Amino acid sequence: MKKLINDPADVISDALHGFAAAHPELRVDFENRVVVRGDAPVRGKVGLVSGGGSGHEPLHGGFVGPGMLDAACAGEVFTSPVPDQMVAATRAVDGGAGVLHIVKNYTGDIMNFELAAELVAAEQGTEVVSVVVDDDVAVQDSLYTAGRRGVGATVLVEKIAGAAAEQGRPLAGVADVARKVNSSARSMGLALTSCTVPAAGRPTFDLPGDEMEVGIGIHGEPGRRRVPVAPAHEIAEMLVSPILTDLDFTGGDGVIAFVNGMGATPLIELYVMFHEVAQLLAKNGITVARSLVGPYITSLDMAGCSVTLLKADEELLRLWDAPVSTPALRRGV
Amino acid sequence: MKKLINDPADVISDALHGFAAAHPELRVDFENRVVVRGDAPVRGKVGLVSGGGSGHEPLHGGFVGPGMLDAACAGEVFTSPVPDQMVAATRAVDGGAGVLHIVKNYTGDIMNFELAAELVAAEQGTEVVSVVVDDDVAVQDSLYTAGRRGVGATVLVEKIAGAAAEQGRPLAGVADVARKVNSSARSMGLALTSCTVPAAGRPTFDLPGDEMEVGIGIHGEPGRRRVPVAPAHEIAEMLVSPILTDLDFTGGDGVIAFVNGMGATPLIELYVMFHEVAQLLAKNGITVARSLVGPYITSLDMAGCSVTLLKADEELLRLWDAPVSTPALRRGV
Repeated sequence: MKKLINDPADVISDALHGFAAAHPELRVDFENRVVVRGDAPVRGKVGLVSGGGSGHEPLHGGFVGPGMLDAACAGEVFTSPVPDQMVAATRAVDGGAGVLHIVKNYTGDIMNFELAAELVAAEQGTEVVSVVVDDDVAVQDSLYTAGRRGVGATVLVEKIAGAAAEQGRPLAGVADVARKVNSSARSMGLALTSCTVPAAGRPTFDLPGDEMEVGIGIHGEPGRRRVPVAPAHEIAEMLVSPILTDLDFTGGDGVIAFVNGMGATPLIELYVMFHEVAQLLAKNGITVARSLVGPYITSLDMAGCSVTLLKADEELLRLWDAPVSTPALRRGV
Repeated sequence: MKKLINDPADVISDALHGFAAAHPELRVDFENRVVVRGDAPVRGKVGLVSGGGSGHEPLHGGFVGPGMLDAACAGEVFTSPVPDQMVAATRAVDGGAGVLHIVKNYTGDIMNFELAAELVAAEQGTEVVSVVVDDDVAVQDSLYTAGRRGVGATVLVEKIAGAAAEQGRPLAGVADVARKVNSSARSMGLALTSCTVPAAGRPTFDLPGDEMEVGIGIHGEPGRRRVPVAPAHEIAEMLVSPILTDLDFTGGDGVIAFVNGMGATPLIELYVMFHEVAQLLAKNGITVARSLVGPYITSLDMAGCSVTLLKADEELLRLWDAPVSTPALRRGV
């Protein structure tokens, strides 16, 4: 295993300290492993909390800041944070207007966020609403999930619901927007290589040098099938086609097209993929209204990419375009 | 070779088309492979042009936009653009106040930018000043360089000189700022793995599974030495120590500390490295005034990182903080 780390047991603590040093405008609660917006709680604003296993950076801590999340909990690598972390995060961002939990659909995350919401409601009377993200069309159930996995759409939910909260919408309204993004978005991913979990010290799965895994999950969970390595235009077809089969993306005000890097794939390859995706969309009569290209929801050092499409309307585009100021996503200059 | 590409011969053209589709606010001259700011030329503003071999994305095209570069030329992978590309870029951004060429110190780039500057001066009377970036303390001469190589400081020169140009400073003033950044910055890099040039189809160099190359160049040029794989705190020492030996970074208004990913290293590892770098700087009495963590000047799919320190004063910090709106760097919300 070749990684820029110290003891594998210290990776998350070390990274959080580095994150805090690099982003002094945010607060980091090291004991609870929670990243909090510097001016939280913002009085009268709905607080947005997300979190999940580490290893998907910049998700979620890199999306904390004005216009996006108020707090993010970092679990162990690929492991849900515990309820105590979520309770600490929820308390830290409760500005009196309620708190939205944005939860990727994995069994552990769902259970722990539910428990945390109950605890905070009982102890403090904080109103908490949860929205579950389950946009992955690759598999119906998986290693860690009943139903579809939450993947790339999480980034779009956090950005767009974050903008709605920043505008002062009430909790029910912010939750509605988050659900609308999730229900209008679909994703599919592909791995060229496995990732290596630091504590394990070896690749999570074996993938021969001439094969790729189509429909991979962000923790290395099995996808749909293994196929021989193929050119980018065929890969784009393998990812876009199941997405378009699952939801009609024509009409409306076009799509937000998101080509995401899995962690070890350089930007030049993501732009090659974006070119292929954009051509396929054009061929299918779908307009690209906005785009996002880069490593935003990763899987440690996995090579590969995912495609997320969000069917947009004027409201979603306006919220997408709204100012945001986080370590990983800034807009509105 | 496992990459998200089509024919290796088409990588740059495909990526440029993807880049253009993802960033419609910029113009792409596909024939000359030049990315141009959408509103160029900006009348009365000094135009900033850079460029170099491809494979370092987001450098340079990802840094085109208000507050940074006016144009960037993309050469073949790890190969200087030709003078015609630089001429086209210079013409496209000539707003009547002269043009600054920001050139990384590689023999081909230096020669070609010189020739382009002479051609544009002779044909159009455009005043062109060149600033050479040579911040790499690893080696004195190298495979492609007489003198030091230009690496991480290029990003800082482009940002800070870009802000100076945006403020309306004259050509000589913008060039002075660029030279000041270069002379106040030092870098050193390290590879955990080789990169693979698409046209070659195999790793540029062999690096055993238990060794790293300290002082690596951004094209896989040899560094100072091979050493056994080491923990992050030792790696930080190997990178920071030669930088601090080369220039006194104490005093002033602290440093801009930049931990850069080489392309295949995920963000969580870069934050681990940033933690170690920040601790070393504190131990040496050096204040971190600003920071940048991420893959900004890469080497295709190489795993590894580099550290760049810039000794800052109030002027440089003000220019660093100035608004910028490019695909890869945004600030000022």
